Amino acid sequence: MAEKLWDGRFSEATDSLVERFTSSIDYDRRLYAHDIRGSVAHATMMAAVGVLTDAERDSIIQGLGQVKEEIERGDFTWSDALEDIHMHVESRLVELIGDTGKKIHTGRSRNDQVATDIRLWLRDEVNEIMALLSGLRRTLVELADTHIDLVLPGYTHLQRAQPVLLAHHLMAYQEMFSRDEDRMRDCLGRINVLPLGSAALAGTAYPIDRELTARLLGFPAISANSMDAVADRDFVVEFLSAASLCMVHFSRLSEELILWSSQEYGFVVISDAFTTGSSIMPQKKNPDVCELTRGKTGRVVGSLMALLMLLKSLPMAYNRDMQEDKEPLFDGVDTLKATLAIYTRMLSHMEFRGEVMANAAETGFLNATDMADYLVNKGMPFREAHSVAGKAVARALDQGIELHHLSLDVLRELTDIFDEDIYDFLTVSGMISRRKSAGATAREQVKSAISAARASLEIKQPAGQRI
Amino acid sequence: MAEKLWDGRFSEATDSLVERFTSSIDYDRRLYAHDIRGSVAHATMMAAVGVLTDAERDSIIQGLGQVKEEIERGDFTWSDALEDIHMHVESRLVELIGDTGKKIHTGRSRNDQVATDIRLWLRDEVNEIMALLSGLRRTLVELADTHIDLVLPGYTHLQRAQPVLLAHHLMAYQEMFSRDEDRMRDCLGRINVLPLGSAALAGTAYPIDRELTARLLGFPAISANSMDAVADRDFVVEFLSAASLCMVHFSRLSEELILWSSQEYGFVVISDAFTTGSSIMPQKKNPDVCELTRGKTGRVVGSLMALLMLLKSLPMAYNRDMQEDKEPLFDGVDTLKATLAIYTRMLSHMEFRGEVMANAAETGFLNATDMADYLVNKGMPFREAHSVAGKAVARALDQGIELHHLSLDVLRELTDIFDEDIYDFLTVSGMISRRKSAGATAREQVKSAISAARASLEIKQPAGQRI
Amino acid sequence: MAEKLWDGRFSEATDSLVERFTSSIDYDRRLYAHDIRGSVAHATMMAAVGVLTDAERDSIIQGLGQVKEEIERGDFTWSDALEDIHMHVESRLVELIGDTGKKIHTGRSRNDQVATDIRLWLRDEVNEIMALLSGLRRTLVELADTHIDLVLPGYTHLQRAQPVLLAHHLMAYQEMFSRDEDRMRDCLGRINVLPLGSAALAGTAYPIDRELTARLLGFPAISANSMDAVADRDFVVEFLSAASLCMVHFSRLSEELILWSSQEYGFVVISDAFTTGSSIMPQKKNPDVCELTRGKTGRVVGSLMALLMLLKSLPMAYNRDMQEDKEPLFDGVDTLKATLAIYTRMLSHMEFRGEVMANAAETGFLNATDMADYLVNKGMPFREAHSVAGKAVARALDQGIELHHLSLDVLRELTDIFDEDIYDFLTVSGMISRRKSAGATAREQVKSAISAARASLEIKQPAGQRI
Amino acid sequence: MAEKLWDGRFSEATDSLVERFTSSIDYDRRLYAHDIRGSVAHATMMAAVGVLTDAERDSIIQGLGQVKEEIERGDFTWSDALEDIHMHVESRLVELIGDTGKKIHTGRSRNDQVATDIRLWLRDEVNEIMALLSGLRRTLVELADTHIDLVLPGYTHLQRAQPVLLAHHLMAYQEMFSRDEDRMRDCLGRINVLPLGSAALAGTAYPIDRELTARLLGFPAISANSMDAVADRDFVVEFLSAASLCMVHFSRLSEELILWSSQEYGFVVISDAFTTGSSIMPQKKNPDVCELTRGKTGRVVGSLMALLMLLKSLPMAYNRDMQEDKEPLFDGVDTLKATLAIYTRMLSHMEFRGEVMANAAETGFLNATDMADYLVNKGMPFREAHSVAGKAVARALDQGIELHHLSLDVLRELTDIFDEDIYDFLTVSGMISRRKSAGATAREQVKSAISAARASLEIKQPAGQRI
Repeated sequence: MAEKLWDGRFSEATDSLVERFTSSIDYDRRLYAHDIRGSVAHATMMAAVGVLTDAERDSIIQGLGQVKEEIERGDFTWSDALEDIHMHVESRLVELIGDTGKKIHTGRSRNDQVATDIRLWLRDEVNEIMALLSGLRRTLVELADTHIDLVLPGYTHLQRAQPVLLAHHLMAYQEMFSRDEDRMRDCLGRINVLPLGSAALAGTAYPIDRELTARLLGFPAISANSMDAVADRDFVVEFLSAASLCMVHFSRLSEELILWSSQEYGFVVISDAFTTGSSIMPQKKNPDVCELTRGKTGRVVGSLMALLMLLKSLPMAYNRDMQEDKEPLFDGVDTLKATLAIYTRMLSHMEFRGEVMANAAETGFLNATDMADYLVNKGMPFREAHSVAGKAVARALDQGIELHHLSLDVLRELTDIFDEDIYDFLTVSGMISRRKSAGATAREQVKSAISAARASLEIKQPAGQRI
Repeated sequence: MAEKLWDGRFSEATDSLVERFTSSIDYDRRLYAHDIRGSVAHATMMAAVGVLTDAERDSIIQGLGQVKEEIERGDFTWSDALEDIHMHVESRLVELIGDTGKKIHTGRSRNDQVATDIRLWLRDEVNEIMALLSGLRRTLVELADTHIDLVLPGYTHLQRAQPVLLAHHLMAYQEMFSRDEDRMRDCLGRINVLPLGSAALAGTAYPIDRELTARLLGFPAISANSMDAVADRDFVVEFLSAASLCMVHFSRLSEELILWSSQEYGFVVISDAFTTGSSIMPQKKNPDVCELTRGKTGRVVGSLMALLMLLKSLPMAYNRDMQEDKEPLFDGVDTLKATLAIYTRMLSHMEFRGEVMANAAETGFLNATDMADYLVNKGMPFREAHSVAGKAVARALDQGIELHHLSLDVLRELTDIFDEDIYDFLTVSGMISRRKSAGATAREQVKSAISAARASLEIKQPAGQRI
Repeated sequence: MAEKLWDGRFSEATDSLVERFTSSIDYDRRLYAHDIRGSVAHATMMAAVGVLTDAERDSIIQGLGQVKEEIERGDFTWSDALEDIHMHVESRLVELIGDTGKKIHTGRSRNDQVATDIRLWLRDEVNEIMALLSGLRRTLVELADTHIDLVLPGYTHLQRAQPVLLAHHLMAYQEMFSRDEDRMRDCLGRINVLPLGSAALAGTAYPIDRELTARLLGFPAISANSMDAVADRDFVVEFLSAASLCMVHFSRLSEELILWSSQEYGFVVISDAFTTGSSIMPQKKNPDVCELTRGKTGRVVGSLMALLMLLKSLPMAYNRDMQEDKEPLFDGVDTLKATLAIYTRMLSHMEFRGEVMANAAETGFLNATDMADYLVNKGMPFREAHSVAGKAVARALDQGIELHHLSLDVLRELTDIFDEDIYDFLTVSGMISRRKSAGATAREQVKSAISAARASLEIKQPAGQRI
Repeated sequence: MAEKLWDGRFSEATDSLVERFTSSIDYDRRLYAHDIRGSVAHATMMAAVGVLTDAERDSIIQGLGQVKEEIERGDFTWSDALEDIHMHVESRLVELIGDTGKKIHTGRSRNDQVATDIRLWLRDEVNEIMALLSGLRRTLVELADTHIDLVLPGYTHLQRAQPVLLAHHLMAYQEMFSRDEDRMRDCLGRINVLPLGSAALAGTAYPIDRELTARLLGFPAISANSMDAVADRDFVVEFLSAASLCMVHFSRLSEELILWSSQEYGFVVISDAFTTGSSIMPQKKNPDVCELTRGKTGRVVGSLMALLMLLKSLPMAYNRDMQEDKEPLFDGVDTLKATLAIYTRMLSHMEFRGEVMANAAETGFLNATDMADYLVNKGMPFREAHSVAGKAVARALDQGIELHHLSLDVLRELTDIFDEDIYDFLTVSGMISRRKSAGATAREQVKSAISAARASLEIKQPAGQRI
């Protein structure tokens, strides 16, 4: 059994079941590079303020480099008895460089160390996620531009409502993912704060220079209160909230792609490369990526719930419950990144069936609102116009035809305001081109939204540069 | 039965069970003022672009004013048959001013109207919440300053760890609530966007001027995509996420106050005015406010869960499911505001028992870390020093005394580095005053944190001015 | 201000904000009848054991009857200062009958009283819910029987898979709701336990007879541990878990009805009486009941989350947090009952469009599995047969026709096992009638499932009689 | 790349990102033994009904045995391309025994196969969990019996309320875990149903004998509806609900042990073997197992939320989303089992400090209720008696003494009913022994609860035998 780093006062060995139960090394080893990076900065700072000699610092940094290499070579021994990544690194460092290694933990605690590790790690991940979000948005914008001529029914309550451009529909998702990126950026600001130097909970008596450590690690700010710094996992909750909402957006898009690729809709064909078949039904081509994504939404939301429940009622400052933050966080990050990557690729391999969509937009009375608008234009109050158009729909339903196939005579039975020009008013292209209010579905509006989105995607600094 | 505003095409009356099931008027009447405010702006804009005459606009605005008065006088008839606040206002408007009233719904839909109402309402509420958060933070800062001399044990794992200033402990919560305020501000930015003019989902053919409406309603931005605008409830989820985290902070503070006011701790006395008694046990004085707050945390998190689940897999654009957003949102806002108000008041009526706290900080070996630091200062590597101090604790436990009561002889059995000066090193005041790293618990650091917090509270524009 | 019943030791009055924050009378007044019923039983028992005289008992019971009447007449004064329903009833009782009223709280506490009230109330509600579930199942069974000849595509991954009887599809839901009823029954067993007599937490020194109280209130069992009895809200969680799952079933059914009533599917027409229209689009007829139900799923699950979070980490025994159990519970019960009632009614007013369904079952290669089975029957291993049928699908897709329209020549290019009899094998009716394994979709199997369900619905005691 | 078993109709290869995203083999390989067991039963049945020859059956069974051995030897190649455990087993079987292997999938689908695997696996796990629950309850009962003489304060609102036996307190948890076991048993009944033979969704045309398969696999029932059978994951939700509640019980027990092992309480000493130390504070001995358990509560509840959200709105029948059921389920099972095992062991190594507890029970006016009861016994109505005792508490607080130290003169100022015998009435032992109502804390009642629990633990069949 490896020697514990804290058992001076203990008289009994740890129960093996307990080692298993309390160990986090299976998952927190993932933080090894960030843990070592933090230790290098800590050692550098400690030498700068004179707690370590330059030689000690150099020996520690060289030793940490070797530990990192061993881990990356797969040449490192992991053990539940050493509990976590911090203990593993420190313990191996001492083996490698001797007593000097025992000085690395001066002026810090695992409480501030782990908070630093997670923040360093999550900062990198959020930057990647923001880049992936930009990439996805770019794909949506290009798809919208490419398909600017396609029309499909817009739905409310999953009933056909009014015709819209496919590009407009796609750009709605661009908006959602743009907000997701904004929320990630806001979250990043609160992640990007250095807790190191808060020690166990009260700060330290060593003459440390936290601003220096922050500069070395690229943190623009240091935490203001040592107790809060070690007890705070708000940024994990905030990240998982933002990730949950992003997954909810994917669940909505997934639902639509599942519908659109069904026999009933037939609006899109998902590439063979992004579907799978059935072990028993030879004809099946299933939108599995969309379904799995929809299912994974619950997974990320479940992790958010886990974290909120975990933090509920925890007294100050650090409590061991907080070790349970990592798996939900890691899983949330992995799930979101995988989904972003696969969607970006799947969307660019999707075939949109313009004719099927256009046909669908022709049927289902999607021009009833415009019939009412026609009457309003001719002076009828909207509520009355709405009622007249409703009656026209009832008439058309009776006859089993569409509104624009009702004869002028029939229409005039409802109100004599109707004239020949009503038929021009009821075409799909007319309906779309008339809707040119800001943010509406007219081609010029959508074109301008595409331009605006492109501009915003270019202006934005690559997220990775922000730090 | 009131006449429906949409039943032109319908041949059967709505089932009464259905009216009850689908009606939202019981709760969305709460939005009446914001609904009317939106309609006034809409009418003003519609006149500006020539869809309404000035006389029509004036009549509508005057009529809406009367509706508002009737509602506020309690002189208004509510009915499930009229479904929601929008229908109620419009229907009464038509009764009051006749056919002109039927023109108010031109160029908009309930889909964009309700989104506008909620955003207007929530903007006001979030501004109030930010003001309440500032108020609470101010109270914490003043408490910290007033009690700058009090010392208590700092805990990790609910075990006594190291002594800290009470002020430092209180300022940890100030940090949390400060982050909450920041998150509310970020959220406000995404609430503060006008959806009106998106109509049902595709925009409108009327020559509306959405920028004008936005200016009239104080929105700094308009939504960019009409489908997204009516389908988007991200801001509700984001608000409930921020509110959940804030409630989690309250749950932590509540837990501590419950502990501190127990017979075992005795650190605080909550004022009689903020506790309640038992119907059967005459001696009881229970920290009910803290307990209820802790319990209410689940309530707000439950509402967040409800919203995320509601939105999962909804296809574009508006779906009736979204009506279910209001009750969780309203309840989240009410719960958070009530908690903020009562805590601000309760905290300023709390008695902190300095002597009891100080005694607690003297026992439980809170100076073991400093004993290790002492040895490090004299040249021993930290890990060894930690081990020696651990053995000293074991020795003291055997003798049933504290570390600072161990004789120098006993200490020297562990290492001859110990000298008389160790005893000065182990006092509570020494421990605190030595911890003067940035963000640590030394009085000067805490004082400076108090100043910084005061400055940040002053600089910040009153939240209500931001729009 | 009303006098508190517990303020002997208090020197300051309760803050008015606190009265508002801690009061539960707004919602727990709903328990008045069960609270009074419990008090009548308590008084009866207390007289039986000699703690009260018969005259005192009679006076108390008569007074409680009067309180009940006043409440039901709407002739009762409610006040936050009296906190909850228990205090209101007791306080009014004392006003009505004087000092004898002050004896009613002997040998009990609000802690065991409220637990008793909720259990009495929830028992009634769960019995009603079970009856509603039976009613819904009966409706499904009758619908299945009535429509036993209708065929529609069965879907997996929302892709057409194999034809099934509509009756079989409906009976799948009957199975789900049958499990829900079973879970409710199991839950009822754990609700149906008397906590009264546990007093504040430790039991009481009065010579009470808890078995007698249980008999008087119809409880088949009494709680075994007084601390557990006042701290236990497991039954609320268990109920909300069962209710959540039932709502998930409704969300699945709702989703299908929304799809089926869309223009793309057209399988069902929901009666006008169960749909609503649009304020702007005259043609719309929206499946609002289904959408709202789908949305309400989140609401009930949110309440479950709230309760689990509330209970997390509560130490023994009663804590005030537990007051927050009632609103989620009440809302869960109300939501579930309203949904059960409206669905039962809506389903029996639904028109199923057999021809549309049947046509859909003819297209989309739903007979590919049977083509493989045909080959297996003739001796080909299943995996090879699956592959051949897959190739036949690819061939048919190329030609834009269905499998059963491929010529025998084309089929024989794939394998010469194919013969003329393949075409009989590929008809919808053939496919359905061949699937006669237990629980499968053949008419005889579905008929027998209908009979079994009817039998189970009859055998079962009306749930209301169980107690 | 391994050959897909379903790609007959596909023209493009699966994207490698998609293989990674859709593969479940990383986690569902855990089901290998149950998958193979199901296949053996399926082959046996298929031979019994004549679809396979006896020789084919024998070859298949022998081949499956070899696959199982290879997996258990670690001598098996896993590949994302083969997606899941079913494909891996079947594919290897074909490699081993040739074309006969291709017949194993006749008459079934992965949809009913995976449902069967999970039910088989979960049945075993729930049986183990029930055994672990019985073991934990046994430990609690023995602890209670061993410590029958220890007294501690009972708390409500975390304020000292009335003295109770430690045994009574422990038996409260025994009650909770007993309900958990009951819920697991109810859940097991609904898990224990065979879905195999439902095929993809509609049943199968092969002349299968599902009752035979059920008998071979030890299932007492078969599913009644093939669509429901492949779409149903209710049993996973129900298990996670029961597991969540059980974890909530652990969170409550954990909270108490954390409090009791704090310096403020000092009621228990957790064995060194079940605690860990601090990397920086040498004196620390932290109740990590309790803290981690408290934290893990959120994890299991998060999994429950994930599942409920996953299932929301899924149309019939199988959807790929459902693949996401496994990880939350596996994690829930593992977490619960680990917690049950470690708590059973930790509790039996815990030292209860009787003297500290007893002292605590003497202070804090825990006898105020009994003072009121004393007055009631002498004829004062309870409400008045409560008020007098409340005033006595106020008096004692003023003097800084306990109630039983108030002089008779002082007491008589409140009411002259008080006499010398009041002092006997106020002793801890008196208070406990008088509380002998059913389920109360008197020693005889607790003894009888211990006997009852022992009896119930013995009568119950070992859970493993039930099938």
